[in-house]
Amino acid sequence: MDTALLKPYFTGLQDRIVDSLEKFDGKQFRRDEWTRPAGGGGVTRVIEEGNFFERGGVAFSHVMGENMPLSATAHRPELAGRRFEALGVSLVLHPRNPYCPTVHMNVRSFVAEKENADPVWWFGGGMDLTPCYGFEEDARHFHQACKSTLAPFGADVHQRYKKWCDDYFFLKHRNEPRGIGGVFYDDLNEGGFERCFALTRAVGDSLVDAYLPIVERRKDVPYGERERDFQAYRRGRYVEFNLVWDRGTLFGLQSGGRTESILMSLPPVVKWRYDWHPEPGSAEEKLYTEFLKPRDWV
Amino acid sequence: MDTALLKPYFTGLQDRIVDSLEKFDGKQFRRDEWTRPAGGGGVTRVIEEGNFFERGGVAFSHVMGENMPLSATAHRPELAGRRFEALGVSLVLHPRNPYCPTVHMNVRSFVAEKENADPVWWFGGGMDLTPCYGFEEDARHFHQACKSTLAPFGADVHQRYKKWCDDYFFLKHRNEPRGIGGVFYDDLNEGGFERCFALTRAVGDSLVDAYLPIVERRKDVPYGERERDFQAYRRGRYVEFNLVWDRGTLFGLQSGGRTESILMSLPPVVKWRYDWHPEPGSAEEKLYTEFLKPRDWV
Repeated sequence: MDTALLKPYFTGLQDRIVDSLEKFDGKQFRRDEWTRPAGGGGVTRVIEEGNFFERGGVAFSHVMGENMPLSATAHRPELAGRRFEALGVSLVLHPRNPYCPTVHMNVRSFVAEKENADPVWWFGGGMDLTPCYGFEEDARHFHQACKSTLAPFGADVHQRYKKWCDDYFFLKHRNEPRGIGGVFYDDLNEGGFERCFALTRAVGDSLVDAYLPIVERRKDVPYGERERDFQAYRRGRYVEFNLVWDRGTLFGLQSGGRTESILMSLPPVVKWRYDWHPEPGSAEEKLYTEFLKPRDWV
Repeated sequence: MDTALLKPYFTGLQDRIVDSLEKFDGKQFRRDEWTRPAGGGGVTRVIEEGNFFERGGVAFSHVMGENMPLSATAHRPELAGRRFEALGVSLVLHPRNPYCPTVHMNVRSFVAEKENADPVWWFGGGMDLTPCYGFEEDARHFHQACKSTLAPFGADVHQRYKKWCDDYFFLKHRNEPRGIGGVFYDDLNEGGFERCFALTRAVGDSLVDAYLPIVERRKDVPYGERERDFQAYRRGRYVEFNLVWDRGTLFGLQSGGRTESILMSLPPVVKWRYDWHPEPGSAEEKLYTEFLKPRDWV
C-alpha cells in the first residue's frame, strides 16, 4: 500500500470537480485554506449566490495526530495509541432552481499506524441525490452512473452500497428518506488497499458525470414562489438529517472540527412550518408518493 | 406529595399563557391534540404568520409508561422497572420583528414509582431570551424577572440557575452562547416536593410578565431587509443549538417523540452563509461584543 498517493488524489479530485462546477456556473468558488492546531488542515472551496448554485462547496481535509482520539477507539481498542491520518473530499451543492436536485458526495480514507504492527486502514464514501421535485429520468441517470461506477468491483457491490445508502440517509423521526439515495459505504478494506482505493477513486471521479447532465437538463425550467417555498421547506429535512443523524457532522461539531467547513453542507435558505402536508394530487405530493421511497431505479 | 396537582397546573398554565399571547398578537393559536400509542399524549398550541409572532407554540405533553425506557435508566439503575410519568409545558416564540427577541420557557416534572418503594421524582425548567439586536433595558428586565421569581426559594438559587442556563445554552462548536440566558435547572428535588413544585410554578407563571413588556416596547421599531437578513442568519444558531446540543430535542427525536411538537421550536425562515462576520462597529457586531457573553444583568 502506498498512502502517499492519497493526498495527491484527493486534492486533484477537488480541483477537477471545482473546475467543472465553475465552468457550469460561471462564478468562481472562493478558496479558504485552514490549519488545525492539533495537526493538518484543509482547503474549503465555497460558492454562494452563484448563477446556478445558491450555496455549496467542495472541501478537502487532511487531519492527523500522534494518538487516536479516545472517542474513535471505544469500539476499536486495537487502534489505541496509534498515530492516525484521515483524508477526504466532501461535496454538497444546493442549486437555486427547485427543479434541480441537491447533491452530496464524500470520499475519505483513514490510516492508523504504529511501530512493529501492520497499519490499520479503511475507505468510505458515496454520493446521493436529494430532489425537491422528482424526475424519473434524472433518478435513473444518477443511479445508473452509480451502478456503472461500481460494476468493475464486484457483481453485488452496487446493490449492497445502494441499500446502505437508503438505510443511512434516513430521517427516523420523519420515517422518511432524505432523498432518492445513491451509494454509501464505510469501513471498507475488503480486497486490499489497491482495490479499495481504486473503488473510492471511481466514486469520486464519477460525480461530475453523474450530476451535471441532470442539472444541465433542468436548469432553465421556469419556477415561481410556490416552488421556491416548497424547496425551502424540503431543505429543512436536509438540515434535520445533517444535524440530528449524520455521524460525520455530529462527530465533527462535537469534537472541535472546523465548524464552517462542516456546515458548508447546510442550505442557504430554509423554512419550517407546523405539520405541513402537500395537497393531494399536487406535484409536491408526488415527491413523497413516488420518489421518497427506496426503489430500484435501474 | 400530591402528583394529581401536576396536570391541572400544567394545562392551566398553557391555557393562561396562550390567552395572553393571543391577546397580544390578535391571532388565535391553532390547537392540535395528539395521543401517544405507548401512553399519554399532549396538546400543541401553535401560531404561524401571526400579526406579531412569525412562528411559535406552547406545548403541553403528558407521557407515561409501565417501564422506564432503558436509555433513561443507564445512569440511574434505581429507576429500572418503574412505571413513570412525565409532564411539562414548553414554549418557544419567534417574533417577526428582528428587534424583538425569541423566548423559550420550559417547566416539567418527572415521577417514577413502584410497589413498596418511595417514588422518585424531580422537576426541571427555566426560561431564556435570544435577541438578534440586543437592548440592555430588555436584558435587565428579563433577568430581573428571573431573579424576583426565584428570590423566595433561597439566596443563591437565582445565581446558580443563571449560571446553569449560561452553561447549558452554549454552542460549543461556535464558542458562543445561544442568547443572553435567563435561568435553567434540572433534576431538582432539594427541599421536598412542595417547594420544588412551587418553584417550578413560579417559573411558569412568570413568563408572560418577563417577556411581553419587552416586545410591547419593541414591536413597532421599524426594520428593513438588512435586519430581517441578520435575524434569519442568527436563527441558524438557534437551529444548530436545538438539533445538535439540546438534550430534550435530541432524545425526543431519536426515541420516537412527536416530531412536529418537538420541532415547533425551530424558526420559520433561516439562512446559512459561509464564515460570515458582522461589520466592525455595526449594530450586528454589538450583539456579539456586548450581549453574547455571560454577564450580570441585574
